[in-house]
Amino acid sequence: MVITLEYASESLNKHTDWKGKIEVVSRVPLNTSLDLSLAYTPGVAEPCLAIMRDARESYALTRRHNMIAVVTDGTAVLGLGDIGPEAAMPVMEGKAVLFKELGNVDAVPLCIRSQSIDDIVNTVRLLSGSFGGINLEDISAPRCFEIERRLKDCCDIPIFHDDQHGTAIVVLAALLNALRLTGKKIKDVCAVINGAGAAGIATAYLLFECGMNEIIMCDRQGSIYAGRNGLSDEKRQIAEITNKKHRKGALCDVMRGSDIFIGVSAPECVTGAMVESMNPAPIVFALSNPIPEIMPELAKAGGAAVVGTGRSDFPNQINNALAFPGVFRGALDAKASDINKEMKLAAARAIAEYIRDEDLSAECIVPCTLDKSVAVAVAEAVSKAAIKSGVSRV
Amino acid sequence: MVITLEYASESLNKHTDWKGKIEVVSRVPLNTSLDLSLAYTPGVAEPCLAIMRDARESYALTRRHNMIAVVTDGTAVLGLGDIGPEAAMPVMEGKAVLFKELGNVDAVPLCIRSQSIDDIVNTVRLLSGSFGGINLEDISAPRCFEIERRLKDCCDIPIFHDDQHGTAIVVLAALLNALRLTGKKIKDVCAVINGAGAAGIATAYLLFECGMNEIIMCDRQGSIYAGRNGLSDEKRQIAEITNKKHRKGALCDVMRGSDIFIGVSAPECVTGAMVESMNPAPIVFALSNPIPEIMPELAKAGGAAVVGTGRSDFPNQINNALAFPGVFRGALDAKASDINKEMKLAAARAIAEYIRDEDLSAECIVPCTLDKSVAVAVAEAVSKAAIKSGVSRV
Repeated sequence: MVITLEYASESLNKHTDWKGKIEVVSRVPLNTSLDLSLAYTPGVAEPCLAIMRDARESYALTRRHNMIAVVTDGTAVLGLGDIGPEAAMPVMEGKAVLFKELGNVDAVPLCIRSQSIDDIVNTVRLLSGSFGGINLEDISAPRCFEIERRLKDCCDIPIFHDDQHGTAIVVLAALLNALRLTGKKIKDVCAVINGAGAAGIATAYLLFECGMNEIIMCDRQGSIYAGRNGLSDEKRQIAEITNKKHRKGALCDVMRGSDIFIGVSAPECVTGAMVESMNPAPIVFALSNPIPEIMPELAKAGGAAVVGTGRSDFPNQINNALAFPGVFRGALDAKASDINKEMKLAAARAIAEYIRDEDLSAECIVPCTLDKSVAVAVAEAVSKAAIKSGVSRV
Repeated sequence: MVITLEYASESLNKHTDWKGKIEVVSRVPLNTSLDLSLAYTPGVAEPCLAIMRDARESYALTRRHNMIAVVTDGTAVLGLGDIGPEAAMPVMEGKAVLFKELGNVDAVPLCIRSQSIDDIVNTVRLLSGSFGGINLEDISAPRCFEIERRLKDCCDIPIFHDDQHGTAIVVLAALLNALRLTGKKIKDVCAVINGAGAAGIATAYLLFECGMNEIIMCDRQGSIYAGRNGLSDEKRQIAEITNKKHRKGALCDVMRGSDIFIGVSAPECVTGAMVESMNPAPIVFALSNPIPEIMPELAKAGGAAVVGTGRSDFPNQINNALAFPGVFRGALDAKASDINKEMKLAAARAIAEYIRDEDLSAECIVPCTLDKSVAVAVAEAVSKAAIKSGVSRV
């Protein structure tokens, strides 16, 4: 793609010039002997002792209240796949930039030199006293599910796999506004989700939580249904609650008569004819990046009422960056021990409601990714939901 | 101590106000859609691929060239001992402040929730692709020795336990100038080191490297000699090369007739009479903090020609902060794979030579801890030594 190649060379040059996209700076003066005595020895002994007496003081006396780790093993980076921990770092640094600029969250990228579930869980667990939260990133399925589940069990800070939940939140936000626009109700519609990895499965769970009643998941072999041979644990579990009519077939078969298509899969696997076969005023979110499952103009020619992609050069960019900065900002503000479903639903609703009725249109269902006020609204909603659902420690 | 109590309350207040002494900031603009495309997707794929093809590119295209981790398990913090990982964080953040302000090194504090050698080694090893170096800090002996040794074996970046080598470097620097002042030669003098933990043992090794011929180590049971019962591995090894005459006895016995006393031990364990029993023009470094082994005025009354302590309110503050910022700055500049003895000796000599002949006096044998030019001189010397000794990768 021309557009990607063009960015490629300029991005490489910029990265060479930047010499790193983040840095660690001091928040305190260090000019006099007194400065040194207060920030370091001997004065620093006192905050140390205060935390020793009550570990919760670490949130008041160190940067922990605002500091998270962005953790990857480099196995599922962008569309690139398993490129290894060092090669994943430019993405993780970019993520840290977004965390700081959009959510004022301090994020430390940590790329782990192992693909072992035990290694990754142990490393994060052992470091969890240094951070207020953990953003897991670009870890391949199905390992990401077990890693997140085990870390949630053994850590007392929020663990959030953004590829799962960040995607689920922004898709739900976009969908709420697309439904608002088309006058459909979430309980009445049927969604087809193509791609049953981290993003697809988490999205299905969150849509159910929000009241959707019928979802059909597809993977490369077609529709997923209970009893299909060779399903992974996660697919087997999702098959129990999706595709209630046990519809078998290819993506084009199950899309027929559905209301919503959500693609978190592969470039150009959807045709205009497939969109035409959907119910009237279909909603199409083609999130494969940089090349969507179907280009917006084709989807519209096929009758799509609303189209979203992951790209910034089309309207309705459905991008995780709308969610994760505000989600963590809110979780940190609430000193939350978890990011639970109530907080995820609150984040999705806050993103959707950020678009006022008078601004809502088929070309405008989600805020601009770089609108720095979005995270403020999301954080407030997430923080309230943390308090209401009992995971706040303020 | 009044002075400590005074700092204590003010330091606690300051820590409450500061809300963390460090933060992670962006080095790149994030205002336009183009900014996002270059720093993050889709452009970021290109530097990722460049690093995937050649992992060394991580030094050019990410912050790795300037980013280190400050790692502790919180077992030997200041004079406080085993206070745990969370309670150690104020010290580690303070250390990160010194790294940035004095050496322009980005330092991420990581406090590990385990005292197991295997856990600590594995955690650091698995994260070593994210950093250009590792500063181990405040890990108790003898575990610190095995942890550092194993990490040096399995990592391709510098591993530096500051309590060992930082102390050794500044003590050697101070000693070189004290010898310059008293006209003694390092090959002719005998030093007594009280305290056979991380700092004492590493100091002994470095003094030998610099040409000293006789050192007697003491611990709480008195002098250490080959064959003494119940010695740890490290003490047994150092006993093979120290105390050549097998002198047995208490600290006061072996100090008699020695030229140099180096205390990295406990408050007020040395008397004026013990200093009087040393050879003429003795050198006394009483580094226990905040209360030295002997107060400077007492040591001088006992005939000490030069006295140094760890405190900023007396002349000759022998503080690791004179060493570690420049040592890492130099190692990072040289993309060194190790911080070896040549680099440590170069650092010590650079600190010593920073004091010009005309400024050298019994009250001025080391630079001021907050003199930001010291690290520049140290870095240059360390970087040259890295290149000369073959561990540089530039």
